[in-house]
Amino acid sequence: MPNPTAAMLVIGDEILSGRTRDANMHYLAGQLTERGIDLKEVRIVGDEAAEITGAAKVLSERYDHVFTSGGIGPTHDDITADCIAAAFDAPIDVRDDARALLADFYEKSGRELNAARLRMARIPDGAALIDNPVSVAPGFSLQNVHVMAGVPSVFKAMVASVLPTLTGGAPLLSETLRVVKGEGDIAGPLGVLAEQFDDLSFGSYPFQQDGIYGANLVVRGTDETRLNAAMDALRETFA
Amino acid sequence: MPNPTAAMLVIGDEILSGRTRDANMHYLAGQLTERGIDLKEVRIVGDEAAEITGAAKVLSERYDHVFTSGGIGPTHDDITADCIAAAFDAPIDVRDDARALLADFYEKSGRELNAARLRMARIPDGAALIDNPVSVAPGFSLQNVHVMAGVPSVFKAMVASVLPTLTGGAPLLSETLRVVKGEGDIAGPLGVLAEQFDDLSFGSYPFQQDGIYGANLVVRGTDETRLNAAMDALRETFA
Repeated sequence: MPNPTAAMLVIGDEILSGRTRDANMHYLAGQLTERGIDLKEVRIVGDEAAEITGAAKVLSERYDHVFTSGGIGPTHDDITADCIAAAFDAPIDVRDDARALLADFYEKSGRELNAARLRMARIPDGAALIDNPVSVAPGFSLQNVHVMAGVPSVFKAMVASVLPTLTGGAPLLSETLRVVKGEGDIAGPLGVLAEQFDDLSFGSYPFQQDGIYGANLVVRGTDETRLNAAMDALRETFA
Repeated sequence: MPNPTAAMLVIGDEILSGRTRDANMHYLAGQLTERGIDLKEVRIVGDEAAEITGAAKVLSERYDHVFTSGGIGPTHDDITADCIAAAFDAPIDVRDDARALLADFYEKSGRELNAARLRMARIPDGAALIDNPVSVAPGFSLQNVHVMAGVPSVFKAMVASVLPTLTGGAPLLSETLRVVKGEGDIAGPLGVLAEQFDDLSFGSYPFQQDGIYGANLVVRGTDETRLNAAMDALRETFA
């Protein structure tokens, strides 16, 4: 059975303007690979409703899971929850279970649960809350879309909350061989091996250091025996 | 006149598997912002022809420019040039001008211009070469798609080659005010200011450090006078 597929949707003007360097994509990619869920596509869009809703729709139809990052805080540009609700025609309002979490948290910390903070309790009907042990305001899963915060510490905590609830596949294994030869000299024999082991994926990632040309050859697959056989063949070819 | 728009297409299984953390998107974003070209969307896809061609088509229709990163080396998984040619129904083959560059380079370095390396001279008919001062193998611009290498040092060099040839707009200016207040206390008054200065964009990026809650408030726009007025208003509001 093939692994489940996934896409990620990163939301935020600050990423597209270059102000902030996104860290969540790389983190999620590693987590999904470990769990045997194949990340097939990532999109990054700005804080614009039509873009967010449109991308969420397309991706949720094409892939088994969609993970979003960003746009669920209390400020005017935090519109992700409403956009995801719109993508599925789901009603959305402040929901009692989310409000209770926030009320308790702000009461304990002596801060006010004002109108802005209440926005973070806007959760679509039918969505399951995603636990946020860092700053309480929850994410949510609506159908196959998992809506999470952009702040990296909160994003990580939410990924840890939601991933165990999803069915994974065979974890993707990978092995690397460092070859000190120009990639152009590697390419021919590497292509032959890639055809021979066509159930595995072969990648070549060139480097250049102090005038030395080389490449890291990476073989990926889910079957350890095949992976070992391919690595043996690689080592023999490039010894 | 509104600024030109752009999208980026990052290509590579190694990004989606989490093996490599992409650095080119963040770099390009900053460069485009300085030049007054608005990066509106980024997509990351794997080394699959249909995905690359499909995304290139859609993005080239929607935006003024598309910048791609990755997949133009000598190995079997380097298929970007052929995919971009296919997106525009352009014939592609080893082209004399690109071959001459490579022949000269490999002759001087005493390495062989073999079949694998010759793949890097595959350039679509009608494309303009993008200079690569790092490792010679050129990128190219076909219509509004600019095809560049994934290796960050080469990507940067190619961006420096191609950006001066494009017409930019007014550079996006930004100013930041650090406010030590919970984002939920900031959100209300910030929303009011955002409506008042609706020609500017207001962002709020929360942080939490040693138990202190705060946010960096970022105002972006192309008109310096308006930006200064907004910053004055922000400082007065959150003093």
